[in-house]
Amino acid sequence: MFRSHHCGALRETHVGTTVQLAGWAAKVRDKGFVLWIDLRDRYGITQLVLDEERCSEKLLEKARNIGRESVVQITGVVVIRESKNPNMATGDIEVLVSDIEVLNQAQTPPFTIEDETDGGDDLRMKYRYLDIRRKPVQNSLLFRSKVGLLVRNFLAAQEFIEVETPYLIKSTPEGARDFVVPSRMNEGQFYALPQSPQTFKQLLMVGGMDKYFQIVKCFRDEDLRADRQPEFTQIDCELSFVHQEDIMQCFEGLVSHLLQEIHGVSTGSFPVISYDDAIKKYGNDKPDIRFGMTFTELNSLAQNKGFQVFDAQELVVGIAVPNAASWSRKQIDAWVNWVKRPQVGANGLVWVKCNEDGTYKSSVDKFFDADALSKWAEACDAKAGDLILVMAGNATQTRTQLSALRMALAEELGLRKPDEFAPLWIVDFPLFEKDEETGALHAMHHPFTAPKPEHLEKLESDPTAVIAQAYDLVLNGNEIGGGSIRIHDRITQEKMLSLLGFSEEEAKAQFGFLMDAFRYGAPPHGGIALGFDRLVAILDGKETIRDYIAFPKNNSGRDVMIDAPAPLDTDQLDELALIVKPKPE
Amino acid sequence: MFRSHHCGALRETHVGTTVQLAGWAAKVRDKGFVLWIDLRDRYGITQLVLDEERCSEKLLEKARNIGRESVVQITGVVVIRESKNPNMATGDIEVLVSDIEVLNQAQTPPFTIEDETDGGDDLRMKYRYLDIRRKPVQNSLLFRSKVGLLVRNFLAAQEFIEVETPYLIKSTPEGARDFVVPSRMNEGQFYALPQSPQTFKQLLMVGGMDKYFQIVKCFRDEDLRADRQPEFTQIDCELSFVHQEDIMQCFEGLVSHLLQEIHGVSTGSFPVISYDDAIKKYGNDKPDIRFGMTFTELNSLAQNKGFQVFDAQELVVGIAVPNAASWSRKQIDAWVNWVKRPQVGANGLVWVKCNEDGTYKSSVDKFFDADALSKWAEACDAKAGDLILVMAGNATQTRTQLSALRMALAEELGLRKPDEFAPLWIVDFPLFEKDEETGALHAMHHPFTAPKPEHLEKLESDPTAVIAQAYDLVLNGNEIGGGSIRIHDRITQEKMLSLLGFSEEEAKAQFGFLMDAFRYGAPPHGGIALGFDRLVAILDGKETIRDYIAFPKNNSGRDVMIDAPAPLDTDQLDELALIVKPKPE
Repeated sequence: MFRSHHCGALRETHVGTTVQLAGWAAKVRDKGFVLWIDLRDRYGITQLVLDEERCSEKLLEKARNIGRESVVQITGVVVIRESKNPNMATGDIEVLVSDIEVLNQAQTPPFTIEDETDGGDDLRMKYRYLDIRRKPVQNSLLFRSKVGLLVRNFLAAQEFIEVETPYLIKSTPEGARDFVVPSRMNEGQFYALPQSPQTFKQLLMVGGMDKYFQIVKCFRDEDLRADRQPEFTQIDCELSFVHQEDIMQCFEGLVSHLLQEIHGVSTGSFPVISYDDAIKKYGNDKPDIRFGMTFTELNSLAQNKGFQVFDAQELVVGIAVPNAASWSRKQIDAWVNWVKRPQVGANGLVWVKCNEDGTYKSSVDKFFDADALSKWAEACDAKAGDLILVMAGNATQTRTQLSALRMALAEELGLRKPDEFAPLWIVDFPLFEKDEETGALHAMHHPFTAPKPEHLEKLESDPTAVIAQAYDLVLNGNEIGGGSIRIHDRITQEKMLSLLGFSEEEAKAQFGFLMDAFRYGAPPHGGIALGFDRLVAILDGKETIRDYIAFPKNNSGRDVMIDAPAPLDTDQLDELALIVKPKPE
Repeated sequence: MFRSHHCGALRETHVGTTVQLAGWAAKVRDKGFVLWIDLRDRYGITQLVLDEERCSEKLLEKARNIGRESVVQITGVVVIRESKNPNMATGDIEVLVSDIEVLNQAQTPPFTIEDETDGGDDLRMKYRYLDIRRKPVQNSLLFRSKVGLLVRNFLAAQEFIEVETPYLIKSTPEGARDFVVPSRMNEGQFYALPQSPQTFKQLLMVGGMDKYFQIVKCFRDEDLRADRQPEFTQIDCELSFVHQEDIMQCFEGLVSHLLQEIHGVSTGSFPVISYDDAIKKYGNDKPDIRFGMTFTELNSLAQNKGFQVFDAQELVVGIAVPNAASWSRKQIDAWVNWVKRPQVGANGLVWVKCNEDGTYKSSVDKFFDADALSKWAEACDAKAGDLILVMAGNATQTRTQLSALRMALAEELGLRKPDEFAPLWIVDFPLFEKDEETGALHAMHHPFTAPKPEHLEKLESDPTAVIAQAYDLVLNGNEIGGGSIRIHDRITQEKMLSLLGFSEEEAKAQFGFLMDAFRYGAPPHGGIALGFDRLVAILDGKETIRDYIAFPKNNSGRDVMIDAPAPLDTDQLDELALIVKPKPE
């Protein structure tokens, strides 16, 4: 044993005990006659003390030369601290050192190992193993591990069983791009890494497993946006003999359990909002409902009153910003400019101050009198002291723009509280999206999602009107999961694939095994997948997932620490019967 | 809800209750006036009954036409069974059906869904989703899930945290072959799938995570032997500030916990046997110690006594087979022939019957008298009634051959009891193996394994004499895990790689990030990895792992159910800038 205690273990009750500790020298403070070292490990920090009176000159000299981040092992006696530190678990004591062994002398690290570091993102990623020593990153990983275990134990208690599905599967050109893996034993052939275990979990239901889950890595070769990773982790679940409501109830239970266990928060039952309502009230299908500022459509009140900017538009829509009537013209103009930025792309913003004294002041006073504006205020549920902001234009675009504004305002006003949790369900998604240009149908969820039974007959006659048995789980403005009841009969699945543009041959080549399986007694089934990386971040009150991934990749899909990907040896390529195309000159 | 109860739930206390059940029609027995259906799901089987007296003709007709393995939902009343079945949990009752809905009519499955099926291996793999419906396979997967959860909760209670390491890493030509993944965003470059998270877990130690574990998929592109899979699962662990004994104690705790929880078996502390002793006493480094028949070297007793077959040999070695002196000449000859088979490759077998009456009868009576044979018997610890079998030849080969014989005999004699568990540690492995032909050194464990500190100085002068701080965990004749204390200083790691034939450049290119990490304060650390697939099988009293993997691949690395791997679209290859070499005509 290298240590008798962790660096977070010692308390006043240990005073007088001889202990051995091991860890990293986080700080060395040398006052000449006395010297303190902060010894750090995963469990905490313990202050070591050496002084001229009680330690040999040789020992002091040795301690003086310990570089920051060196690994040391010490023997010493726990003593009471003269000036206690109530902010540290071990703040009542220090350890008077009688022996030091330097287990590994460290070079000066490229950035400071502190909560607030001087290292930039690139440097921290290159030396991720040092970044992980920093408390915020370490805590993120500890938190992730804890959530994973909570999820597993909750689901196991509900008779879910964890089944590992294969990673080396078959490429399907549909959907996002697959990462592929050349097979050496089957020359010229490739495996694919799964984008999700979708078909396998459905086969497990055909196999009678009844309740399946897995916390599993998935892979998508997409051009990476900020905060997307080519490999990501999913809580993947599937259940047999269930309706949509059964699944929603089960996973509402899971998220409630996590919020209760982690934050002691009891949310009550989750609101259920239809996709259409979400779009109309929040401008998107993953609304943050921790705060109001819901959309009010003002077409009937604001059009054909002589303000031509509104008249020709498909949609006039407003929100009431609480307590913002007092904003200066400069403040308001800043938001007008904000929505005009290319990232948002709006034409402008009409504003109405609902003053505390009951008067109105707006940017459209020329066209609307107090009476007209009071009707807007009533419609928007704006109180005295609120500011109404109105946008107009094409319905889809305008909603997206107003949604962006709503979120930015909420951020600015501190309404997106990290310790408040507002989960909800979005339901009644359309089964298909129609490509505006080509007219082709795409599956809004995926090709295995079942339509509502009463919409089955519209599948061919009016496909875009068909509502799916699909549901998304939203938490604090983030989609944390989504799922559906699946098609479980072969005929409907074939029809679905045909509507999505698969030829009979393509359907057979790619999903033949699944449709074969449906011939032999497939039960009604459905499931859900939760994005684990994001769920963990949001449960921890954060929005960026990168700190919750031990070794993330950058936006070019590179691991800069190990420098991957990298060229292969020619021998390796030869064995795989592959040639890398030379780059054009 | 499709059901009020599972098919394994109903008992005599439910009699009179109206229930809804859903599941698969496992059996339909039609006696004309009465008809029984065995309704099956994951939780059990419930007998349904319909008869002319209590059911409508229409309902009976409907029930008659339900094909085997069709999915049905029924409503009915729980009634007491006339002839109870004590072998079934639900054997006291049956459900008198009042309504049936066929949720999915099934075609006749290609093999019977019974514990003992008529389906061959190939057919079962092609329709694995049907195979999984069979109780033995289903139970294997349930068992695996249970063991996984036990492992996680045990390790979490010991403050291990689960950290997910990346799947898209960097290829290292050393060791087994990597599966590689072409990068589209980094043309001409490749990721590799991890053979194990070895370097990442070491970096987590450098990062101060202190105790890490992960149940993780690993990948090896090797030519597959029976019962090997290209993707397999590992319980991967690493600890900081530990000695070899600390790690052994911790994982002895894990395996003891599993045996206790699963089988109620208390093993006591595990024997620790040195590699040399294991080879000498059992002929291999993963001995099955559930039974005796340990090796006795007979050189001093059996050589230079006129029997020239023995005299020139490096090793003469015997085992005592319990209670086998009564075997007929024919039985013994069968074993003599068994060892001569090319798979074993021995020259022959000398036998000595230690008769119950104290006399000896042997195949070498011409050369050895009773007195000489009694000395063999004493040395081999053979009792009256035992049979001594002796082999001679080159030491390494002979030990391997006698080990094969020992295991085959134990199998034959029923000494390898599936409900008996005999774990042990093998320690003191050599650090290197020397290639007999080239003289090159290979790492016996891997290049990161630390030598014993007192052997450090022999590293260059006498490398093959260096003993590693490595240990294997063996259970019932199978290596279920192995690990080591790792090198944690850069100088030793560089020396190690150089001894293994890495040039300075190669070492830097492949493991530069690890050796860089060692500059910044790497703690002493070590770890272990357990083969999860095999551990689960052995804990369940089985030796083949395939039934414990939901969707295994065959010996050509193919998934015959989904038909993977498969050729890629030209578009996909183009995007990856790859050309598949045409096959030579």
